[in-house]
Amino acid sequence: MNLSLLTDLYQLTMLCGYYSHQKLEQQSCFDLYFRRLPFSGGFCLAGGLEPALEWLESLKFEEPQIEYLRSLDLFPGEFLEWLRDFRFSGDIQALPEGTLVFPGEPILRIQAPLPQAQLIESALLNLINFHTLVATKAARVRLAAGDGLVLEFGLRRAQGVNGALAATRAAMVGGCHATSNVQAGFLYNVPVKGTHAHSWIMSFDTELEAFRAYADTYPDSCTLLVDTYDTLQSGVPNAIKVGKELAEKGYNLAGIRLDSGDLAHLSRESRKMLDAAGLTEARIVASNDLDEHAIAELKSAGAKIDIWGVGTNLVTCKDEPALGGVYKLVAASDQDGRLTPRIKVSSNPVKTTIPGIKQVYRAYNGERAVGDVLCLEDEPPTSDSRQIATTHALTGEKRTLHFTRLEPLLTPVVKNGKRVMPSESLLDSAERARQNLASLGEEHKRLKQAAPYWVGLSDGLYQLRERLLKGS
Amino acid sequence: MNLSLLTDLYQLTMLCGYYSHQKLEQQSCFDLYFRRLPFSGGFCLAGGLEPALEWLESLKFEEPQIEYLRSLDLFPGEFLEWLRDFRFSGDIQALPEGTLVFPGEPILRIQAPLPQAQLIESALLNLINFHTLVATKAARVRLAAGDGLVLEFGLRRAQGVNGALAATRAAMVGGCHATSNVQAGFLYNVPVKGTHAHSWIMSFDTELEAFRAYADTYPDSCTLLVDTYDTLQSGVPNAIKVGKELAEKGYNLAGIRLDSGDLAHLSRESRKMLDAAGLTEARIVASNDLDEHAIAELKSAGAKIDIWGVGTNLVTCKDEPALGGVYKLVAASDQDGRLTPRIKVSSNPVKTTIPGIKQVYRAYNGERAVGDVLCLEDEPPTSDSRQIATTHALTGEKRTLHFTRLEPLLTPVVKNGKRVMPSESLLDSAERARQNLASLGEEHKRLKQAAPYWVGLSDGLYQLRERLLKGS
Repeated sequence: MNLSLLTDLYQLTMLCGYYSHQKLEQQSCFDLYFRRLPFSGGFCLAGGLEPALEWLESLKFEEPQIEYLRSLDLFPGEFLEWLRDFRFSGDIQALPEGTLVFPGEPILRIQAPLPQAQLIESALLNLINFHTLVATKAARVRLAAGDGLVLEFGLRRAQGVNGALAATRAAMVGGCHATSNVQAGFLYNVPVKGTHAHSWIMSFDTELEAFRAYADTYPDSCTLLVDTYDTLQSGVPNAIKVGKELAEKGYNLAGIRLDSGDLAHLSRESRKMLDAAGLTEARIVASNDLDEHAIAELKSAGAKIDIWGVGTNLVTCKDEPALGGVYKLVAASDQDGRLTPRIKVSSNPVKTTIPGIKQVYRAYNGERAVGDVLCLEDEPPTSDSRQIATTHALTGEKRTLHFTRLEPLLTPVVKNGKRVMPSESLLDSAERARQNLASLGEEHKRLKQAAPYWVGLSDGLYQLRERLLKGS
Repeated sequence: MNLSLLTDLYQLTMLCGYYSHQKLEQQSCFDLYFRRLPFSGGFCLAGGLEPALEWLESLKFEEPQIEYLRSLDLFPGEFLEWLRDFRFSGDIQALPEGTLVFPGEPILRIQAPLPQAQLIESALLNLINFHTLVATKAARVRLAAGDGLVLEFGLRRAQGVNGALAATRAAMVGGCHATSNVQAGFLYNVPVKGTHAHSWIMSFDTELEAFRAYADTYPDSCTLLVDTYDTLQSGVPNAIKVGKELAEKGYNLAGIRLDSGDLAHLSRESRKMLDAAGLTEARIVASNDLDEHAIAELKSAGAKIDIWGVGTNLVTCKDEPALGGVYKLVAASDQDGRLTPRIKVSSNPVKTTIPGIKQVYRAYNGERAVGDVLCLEDEPPTSDSRQIATTHALTGEKRTLHFTRLEPLLTPVVKNGKRVMPSESLLDSAERARQNLASLGEEHKRLKQAAPYWVGLSDGLYQLRERLLKGS
């Protein structure tokens, strides 16, 4: 489907306005970033770059789109003809998916004629916001699960078809091990998992008969749902019976699944019963309204759960279902055609922008990320000094970062309208996320009351901002 | 795109299990319903039927799907060959979109061989859950807005591309007047609205110059965003200047838009200034983190707002981003092949199912809906009696509904696998929603602490349930 019209109408009315006023060439730079970490957490993982680039590559107004816009009776014919040849011709730098990102840091930096940069705002925000949010949530769930496996089970409660597919994709970037969503497995080449539902049990006369039939069909991957009638009185004993029958045929019962009740108690008791029966390899899967906090509590209550199925709370990010990403002008060409920094001042300090064309550097001391610094692109820091002075944009607090390595994070992905970053597999993005998280101190990864990670401005950038603040 | 794989893996592993155990013909009936109203509200509007039927019509496993499933190494080749010819062959009854629906009432009722009914569960839940949720939220926003217009502005914060499109569609069913999402306008033939952003203003040397340029491009639909610098000192006075210039050319300034600050105060002051300047036709649009509660509070604070732009909180249903719809077996054929009612008992009474193949009747007294009654389909109530005895499933409370008209709500939409309900326009669904809401007492439409609407079981159904509960 041509999704060129996936934009807010005002982007098109403005585009036409710029066209009518011969302002198509004014150069601009926009940052796409968020102001506040979601989930009261300590980090985000950047997501959505691949779908955003795919959308951008396909941006082209064809006959049906032109005719639809004509039907709105808003746009002159001359503009619509011009729109037929419209192509994005700018440059984009971006954080690769799975990169740790913090408030104020550009996930995307768009340099393009202003009307073009504006036109692509809505779709970019849509894609980056949602993927970043879910990747972050998935990482939190994975952190809570520790050595346990995390399965994404959210299809039935996700926000529509693509809401589900996008959520699965982002959840895999963030660290989920597999999904129940077969379409996502098909599209993204990620592992799919699943067993059976209560209705399978109910379609047989007895639970035991249902278990035996399932084991007969899947002898080497048989996980049995044990809570249809009574978990400890009926489900687990029947599963053990079937597990022993499988063992006689040379197979291991893969596991049991708990989907209701006190998961801590039931998993502990089930584990004892399975172990006593010699089924020590059978793993316990749990699901039912789980999120990172529920997993952490169950673990601290001694739950014996090996695999966590997480659905609604992950795919909808139920406790905070939208990331407030924004897209702000940080530079524009003046009357002489020079690209100069711009600031938008707000009575709410967190809404005042950070001006200028910037790069984000991450300072590492050994393997540990010790802080980020936003610099003006034309004043790159020197890595030789091994230290850099930074100032917090909001508090004015100063901190010198000592480092062994300084890594620029924004990477060119589009040049002159052409994609220059090759497409990346989900597994590669997930591996980047894993490495990035490994570099982050535990204090920033706490599920609650995480310590804030340091993001400062370089001296040059801080002074520029102060100057523009005074001039405004 | 072929979305046949849009299902949880366990639906396919179960399907293969049924295939292997020659259980493909067992008849079943499933209800798709929710147990609890979202948003602490008093009603839901059914949504998602059209996309659900479109998905069902396209359900067909083709070569790429079969090959993918083969690659999972889970399914015997014989089953995969059989899957090529798989078609849904059952019957579905449904609540048309825009119908008021309450906990326990089937939105869809699926009668089909059990393996078939099971296979389509995940996609149906996905589509019905999300559309019903957003349509309901939109209706609440519309109720709060009263005579004001409601615009859906959520694209940039929606849950992915289709999350946005689905949300727009459902929002229009629920009562929004227009959207900013152009792709949705194109696909669904609904009105699109929009003006310009702060970046338009910032791309000109002065706000006045920017306003003049915009008015020049759109003289007859010019709404000016007045909060870039200072709403009352600069934005509104400049808008008034441009409004007067437009008036000299024979045009009316369409309006101004407020997007920050104290919307109650700013709108009252702006209204006075516009009126004093003779611009009484200019309308005031407000946006910025609005939902039904914010709108209600602004209105009670005397805000002079004509048009409400609602984004994130509507499209993500931020305060409750998932409807907990479930899909439960209510009848299955026994060994003699007779379809008999089934119940699933839970220690949590609200999770115990309502068995049997049911119809939902709405009792009207004049124009007012006075209660719903769930009946067994083979024991339809007589309309002649003008009254019907009902019992609440959870509380056992009894109530006799007196009515002038009894309307069956579930409508045949699929027969023997073929769609029998013609496709319906969004405008028709929206009109049904409007009429349904008009029939509902104000006490059920309160945004907070809404009175519960009565849903009872017929005597026949109540007795059946009691009998099965005792037998279980």
